[in-house]
Amino acid sequence: MLFLQMGWGDLGVYGEPSRETPNLDRMAAEGTLFPNFYSANPLCSPSRAALLTGRLPIRNGFYTTNAHARNAYTPQEIVGGIPDSEQLLPELLKEAGYVTKIVGKWHLGHRPQFHPLKHGFDEWFGSPNCHFGPYDNKARPNIPVYRDWEMVGRYYEEFPINLKTGEANLTQIYLQEALDFIKRQARRRPFFLYWAVDATHAPVYASKPFLGTSRRGRYGDAVREMDDSIGKMLQLLQDLRVADSTFVFFTSDNGAALISAPEQGGSNSPFLCGKQTTFEGGMREPALAWWPGHITPGQVSHQLGSIMDLFTTSLALAGLTPPSDRAIDGLNLLPALLQGRVMDRPVFYYRGDTLMAATLGQHKAHFWTWTNSWENFRQGMDFCPGQNVSGVTTHTLEDHTKLPLIFHLGRDPGERFPLSFASTEYQEALSRITQVVHQHQEALVPGQPQLNVCNWAVMNWAPPGCEKLGKCLTPPESIPKKCLWSH
Amino acid sequence: MLFLQMGWGDLGVYGEPSRETPNLDRMAAEGTLFPNFYSANPLCSPSRAALLTGRLPIRNGFYTTNAHARNAYTPQEIVGGIPDSEQLLPELLKEAGYVTKIVGKWHLGHRPQFHPLKHGFDEWFGSPNCHFGPYDNKARPNIPVYRDWEMVGRYYEEFPINLKTGEANLTQIYLQEALDFIKRQARRRPFFLYWAVDATHAPVYASKPFLGTSRRGRYGDAVREMDDSIGKMLQLLQDLRVADSTFVFFTSDNGAALISAPEQGGSNSPFLCGKQTTFEGGMREPALAWWPGHITPGQVSHQLGSIMDLFTTSLALAGLTPPSDRAIDGLNLLPALLQGRVMDRPVFYYRGDTLMAATLGQHKAHFWTWTNSWENFRQGMDFCPGQNVSGVTTHTLEDHTKLPLIFHLGRDPGERFPLSFASTEYQEALSRITQVVHQHQEALVPGQPQLNVCNWAVMNWAPPGCEKLGKCLTPPESIPKKCLWSH
Repeated sequence: MLFLQMGWGDLGVYGEPSRETPNLDRMAAEGTLFPNFYSANPLCSPSRAALLTGRLPIRNGFYTTNAHARNAYTPQEIVGGIPDSEQLLPELLKEAGYVTKIVGKWHLGHRPQFHPLKHGFDEWFGSPNCHFGPYDNKARPNIPVYRDWEMVGRYYEEFPINLKTGEANLTQIYLQEALDFIKRQARRRPFFLYWAVDATHAPVYASKPFLGTSRRGRYGDAVREMDDSIGKMLQLLQDLRVADSTFVFFTSDNGAALISAPEQGGSNSPFLCGKQTTFEGGMREPALAWWPGHITPGQVSHQLGSIMDLFTTSLALAGLTPPSDRAIDGLNLLPALLQGRVMDRPVFYYRGDTLMAATLGQHKAHFWTWTNSWENFRQGMDFCPGQNVSGVTTHTLEDHTKLPLIFHLGRDPGERFPLSFASTEYQEALSRITQVVHQHQEALVPGQPQLNVCNWAVMNWAPPGCEKLGKCLTPPESIPKKCLWSH
Repeated sequence: MLFLQMGWGDLGVYGEPSRETPNLDRMAAEGTLFPNFYSANPLCSPSRAALLTGRLPIRNGFYTTNAHARNAYTPQEIVGGIPDSEQLLPELLKEAGYVTKIVGKWHLGHRPQFHPLKHGFDEWFGSPNCHFGPYDNKARPNIPVYRDWEMVGRYYEEFPINLKTGEANLTQIYLQEALDFIKRQARRRPFFLYWAVDATHAPVYASKPFLGTSRRGRYGDAVREMDDSIGKMLQLLQDLRVADSTFVFFTSDNGAALISAPEQGGSNSPFLCGKQTTFEGGMREPALAWWPGHITPGQVSHQLGSIMDLFTTSLALAGLTPPSDRAIDGLNLLPALLQGRVMDRPVFYYRGDTLMAATLGQHKAHFWTWTNSWENFRQGMDFCPGQNVSGVTTHTLEDHTKLPLIFHLGRDPGERFPLSFASTEYQEALSRITQVVHQHQEALVPGQPQLNVCNWAVMNWAPPGCEKLGKCLTPPESIPKKCLWSH
C-alpha cells in the first residue's frame, strides 16, 4: 500500500500538465483508476488513523473538541494517539499470518504506548511525526527516526535535510527499506507493506539525482522521485514473479497543500481549495489499484471510494471479515475492481468534530463552509489561492445546516455553481442526502477525542534507544494544556 | 484534421474527472499528446483563420481596430472575411494533388467571395456561422447549411435543433459526411479532411442515443458524441488499412467557454479563466497527433505548439514548403513528433489588435491583463467563474507593458503567483521574452482588419441555392456600420 501526500492533480494520468509520473501513469494503465476517491479527513494524522482502522476519525478519536470544526493532528507536543481499543489493519492481518511493515511516517502518536509495533506492525523504519525542523534540541527536539523499537537518529542530524538546497536522501533510504522487505518476504509469508514516506510534504526535498530535474520546481523533483520509487517497487514485484499475488494501491492522505504553492505545493487541478478544507481539493485523492492478472488493465471506476475502504478490502483479500463489534466505514472495493460494480455509499467530510459536507451519488451537500479565519487569511495563509466562490469559500464558519449548499460534482467538479434551492434536482438530492446523514448521525458514537491535550514534556526528548546513541535530551516540566488549533 | 470546441481539461487523458472520452484517450495512448499547445486566439473565427493560413490573426486580417484589445469574430452581419491575398492550406495542398473537404463550421466569412470552395476546398458540408438561433427570418435569418456551392437548408428548419430537449442529429450527419469522404478517397487520391463540427459550442446539443448519458450533463453528452465520432473515423482508417498513411491531429479553437458553465460549458482544468481571455484557460488546448507506424505510441511532447503549426506540418507531410513571400507563424512539428525534438519558439497571445502576453520556454509575460468590463461582469458575464487573482484577472484593461507580470507555467500553471519583480528569474525571463517580442513587433505588418464593419443587409438572407429551395429572404436596406465588440 503506497500512501503519499500528493494532490489529485499531481499525476500525469490525472492531468498534471508537466506529466512527470510515467510509473504511476503506467500503474493506472495496467490497473484501475478511481477519479472519485476520498481521504477521510483534509489533514494527515486523522486520515492515517482512518486508513488503518477503517473508521472515521470521529469514531477512532483522531479529532479535537477544543473548538468547533477545527483540524487537529499529532505534532510532537500532542499527548494522545491511537487508542488501544482500536483494531488496526496490521493487527488483524497478522492473525492471518501476514508479516507487516510500515516504512515512513506513522503519525498516530509518538509516545511509547502508541508505537506502531504495539499496534500490529512487525517492523518499522521511519518517524512518528513530520520532518518539520530543524530545531535546536532545547525548546524543541528534532524528530527521531526509528528502526523497529528504537531510534537510530534524528532528522537534520543523522538524517540530513538541507532546506536551502532541498537535498535529502530520505526517499532513497525509504525506498531501499521497502525493496529489502519485499525481497525478503515475497517468497516466504504473505506480507503487508505500508509505504508512507514523508516526501512531497513541505519542507520539500529530493535526492541529488532528482533535484532540479522537474519542469515544476522542487515539488516536482520530489514527485518525480516518488514516481521513480514506485516504478522500482512494481518492477521488483514483477521480477520476483509475485505481481499477480500482490495487491498494490496508491493514494494520498489529503489534498495538495496550496498554502505551500507554488514552490512547495502540489495541484488539485479542477477542484476547489486544498488541504485543511472540506472542498473537493481538500479531500479528493488520486487512487490507483494494481493487481496484474486480476484487475483488467486500463479501467476507470466511478465507485465513490475512501481510504477507509483499504482496510476492508485488505481484510477481504486476506480472507478476513472486519470486526463486527464496532462501526466500520470502509467498503470492500473488490466488487468494484473485479466485477466493475458501483455500490451506493455516502462520503462524509468531517473537520474535527463537525460534519461539514456529504456526497451521495454525484451530489454534494455542504452543511458548513469554512476555509480559514479572516485573521489567518489576512496574514497571508490562503487555502484557496486564486479561487473565490462567493458564499462558499467563506472565512467565517457558515452554518448551512438548515439549507445546505448542493453541488453536482459531475457538471461542476469545481464547486462553483450551487444548485438553485427551488429546483427539483436540489429538493431530490437534499432529501436523499438528509436521510443518509440522519442515519449516520443517529448511530454515531464519537470516540474519546485524542487531540485535545498538548504538553511540551511529551515531545521526542528521549525516545527508546536514545541512550545507546547518546542522544537523550532532558524534557521540560510537565504542563498539560489545551492544544490550540487555529483552523 | 479534427478541430473542435473543447477545453484543455475536457478529455479524460487531460484529467477530466468523469473520463468519458475513451476514443480520444486511446488516440493519445497510440500517439503523441501535447500538454503545451495553443490556439492562435481566444475566439473561434480568428483561430480558424490562423489554422488555415498558418498566420496570426493580426497578419491575416481576422481582428478589429474598432477598439483596443477587443475580441471579434464573424457573426452573420460581418462584412469581412478571409482575404483573397491569403493562401489557405487546402489551396496549397491541392497543388500537391490532394482532394480537400471541410465538414462543419467555416467561420471565415459567409459572403460569396469568402466561400470555402473559392479558397481551396473541393467540398463542403456545413455552415458558415455558428448555430446560434432560432431566428424569426425577419430581423435575422437562420444560418444556412451548405453542400458545396449551395445551401441545402437552414438550422432549426431542415436541420432541427431542439433547444429544450437538446436533441439534434447534426453531429451524426457531420460524422457520416466524414466517413463517406474517407471511404471514397482513401484508396484513390491523397486527401485533406477538416472536420470542424460545431457541437459542444453553446447552445449545446447531442443526438438521442447520447442525450442524458453523460455524468457531466448535456455538455458531456456532446463531448461523448464527439469522442464516439472520432473513434469511428480512426477505426475506419484502420479498417481501410490507410491509418499508417494518414496523419490525424485533434485540437480545439479556444478554451472552454466558462460563461456557459456548468450546463453548457467545458473545463479548462487547472488553468485560469476561459474563452475570450488570454490567460491559459483561454488559449491552451488539448492536442493529439496520431499516425500509427510513424509516431511512437504514448509519447508526451513538451514542444510549445500552436494550431498554426498544423499549416506548416501538413505542408511538410505533403512535401511542400510554406509560402516564402509572407510571414508564417507555424512551425513544422514533425521533428517534435518523429524525433522527440523540442524547438525554442514563442507563443503570442493576441486579443484583437493587442499583444496581451507572450510565452517563451516555461515563462509567460503579460503585457496587458483583462477579463471583461465591470459593466459586463456586473451583468453576470463571468469569464473566470470562481477564480480571482488579484491584479491579474482585472476588469479594466491594465497596462503592464513597462513591468510585465511574469509567471512560471510549470510551477504555476494556474497563473496565480506572479514572479517577484526583484528576482533574478524575473529579470532573466523578461530579458529573453522582451527580445523575442521586439523582433516580432518590428517585423510585423498587420493585415487589413476584416472585422470592423457590420451590415444587416449582408446576413444569410439569400445564400446561393435558396431559389431552388424557395428559401430566399429579402435583405433590409444596406447600412454599413462599425461592429460593436464589447470585450
